[in-house]
Amino acid sequence: MKEMDQNQNRPLPDKNAPIGVFDSGVGGLTVMREIIRQIPNEKIIYFGDTARVPYGNKSQETVTRFSEQIVRFLKTFQVKTIVVACNTVSAYAMEALEQGIDIPIIGVVKPGARAAISATRNGRIGVIATEATISSQIYTKYIKELNPNVSICGKACPLFVPLVEEGLWEDPVTDEIARRYLTELIDIDIDTLILGCTHYPLIRSTVGKIMGDSVTLVNPAYETARELRELLTKQNLLCETPPALGSNRYQFYVSDKADKFVQFANSIIKYGILSAKTIHIETY
Amino acid sequence: MKEMDQNQNRPLPDKNAPIGVFDSGVGGLTVMREIIRQIPNEKIIYFGDTARVPYGNKSQETVTRFSEQIVRFLKTFQVKTIVVACNTVSAYAMEALEQGIDIPIIGVVKPGARAAISATRNGRIGVIATEATISSQIYTKYIKELNPNVSICGKACPLFVPLVEEGLWEDPVTDEIARRYLTELIDIDIDTLILGCTHYPLIRSTVGKIMGDSVTLVNPAYETARELRELLTKQNLLCETPPALGSNRYQFYVSDKADKFVQFANSIIKYGILSAKTIHIETY
Repeated sequence: MKEMDQNQNRPLPDKNAPIGVFDSGVGGLTVMREIIRQIPNEKIIYFGDTARVPYGNKSQETVTRFSEQIVRFLKTFQVKTIVVACNTVSAYAMEALEQGIDIPIIGVVKPGARAAISATRNGRIGVIATEATISSQIYTKYIKELNPNVSICGKACPLFVPLVEEGLWEDPVTDEIARRYLTELIDIDIDTLILGCTHYPLIRSTVGKIMGDSVTLVNPAYETARELRELLTKQNLLCETPPALGSNRYQFYVSDKADKFVQFANSIIKYGILSAKTIHIETY
Repeated sequence: MKEMDQNQNRPLPDKNAPIGVFDSGVGGLTVMREIIRQIPNEKIIYFGDTARVPYGNKSQETVTRFSEQIVRFLKTFQVKTIVVACNTVSAYAMEALEQGIDIPIIGVVKPGARAAISATRNGRIGVIATEATISSQIYTKYIKELNPNVSICGKACPLFVPLVEEGLWEDPVTDEIARRYLTELIDIDIDTLILGCTHYPLIRSTVGKIMGDSVTLVNPAYETARELRELLTKQNLLCETPPALGSNRYQFYVSDKADKFVQFANSIIKYGILSAKTIHIETY
């Protein structure tokens, strides 16, 4: 018989069930990488919406609709929790997703906001992210809830994702574009900068070079994995033993063809991603 | 009674019916602009797949599936012909689309190939386009069919679309990226360059500056509109009188929210685009 949740009278999720992680594409793999580092016993189902990527310049309605389809897909695996490894979805769709779900779901924005609050000394925080995440003002909202005295400045960096995806992680063009985006954040003397898009940790060294040593760069991926571990521990859902050898610990699904995804994924996660499967996400 | 096509025993399309034009997003508006210039009497239904843009780095299977949905959507307007105003779709999906349709459908690749053949003097043609269009080798195939003695060199320019969409039409960064992409085409002494993506005419001056005056830049949009006019004339489908004042001559549909599209569209088509409607394209 399944254990029951005393408060809500529903079966508790199985602690050996996988965690679902999703993103608009490959960027969320930087979050998955952190989860693997911090809770290596867990099984993970990753979905990247590579047929409809990017989300960062699309509307709240569209991003919410796409995300709801993905959550329905991940639920077919009886996942015990879902990690929204995409800032744009975390910014636009968390409320809608939380309403329709009976398992824990966590995004990357709240953990990122908390980490920035801990890091700042002068109370001036910058956020770089997609147009969607910035225009949602979600980081500002969460940070102000935690500490109304902090000031936050957001800056959309729409060319960072294509530059990262073209592999120009260290390149004079990326330097020049980064300088344009970041100048106004330097001018207002922030001491903490949130890398508010899962692609941005991949150009961390470029951003760090321009911002200078006095600015702390916050990668919400690390903090999200830490909060996930805490959540699973608290709810007694942490997987206690590593999956058996030969079991399919990490499974990857995408909405476009798998080959290009696998190639990029292998450059981020240093774990042999043998294959990924394509599904038609719009049918969920 | 409807006029019948003698050869195929089916009703001929109505010459007053609209033309359907579609693209993955806004780029196809450069083709629509040429159609408006060359056959101003026509009514046009434009669809831009702004929820799933871009197509240029996605697979043939996905691009074909998306395009088939769009053709089904356009057919609900009883369009008399469809213009595929997207090089990636023209490269990947034309055969599949032609098979399933009973009205004329034309892409931008064949007209572009013909124009390049007419333009070249030294028999060396370059093509710049998305990764998808280049990897399909479709321009090479069509050009070789027309003249097997011509040599063709294709170069994918994946950063051009995001640079154009960010408005960096004339900018040192666009210059630098263009120089990297175009150097190998200059080195092999092409005299004709096909702008094989509907966004590229918007950075024509940057490309022209780097290639130099001796290289003819071919914009398939112009040639496509010319061939469309010829096709409609030949099939007796040309609209003979302008639509009545106040009639909805140009209608715009998109799959994401309309506001951003309308703003960009108005910068390309100097005709008041009052509004665009959002539809869920995956349901077609």
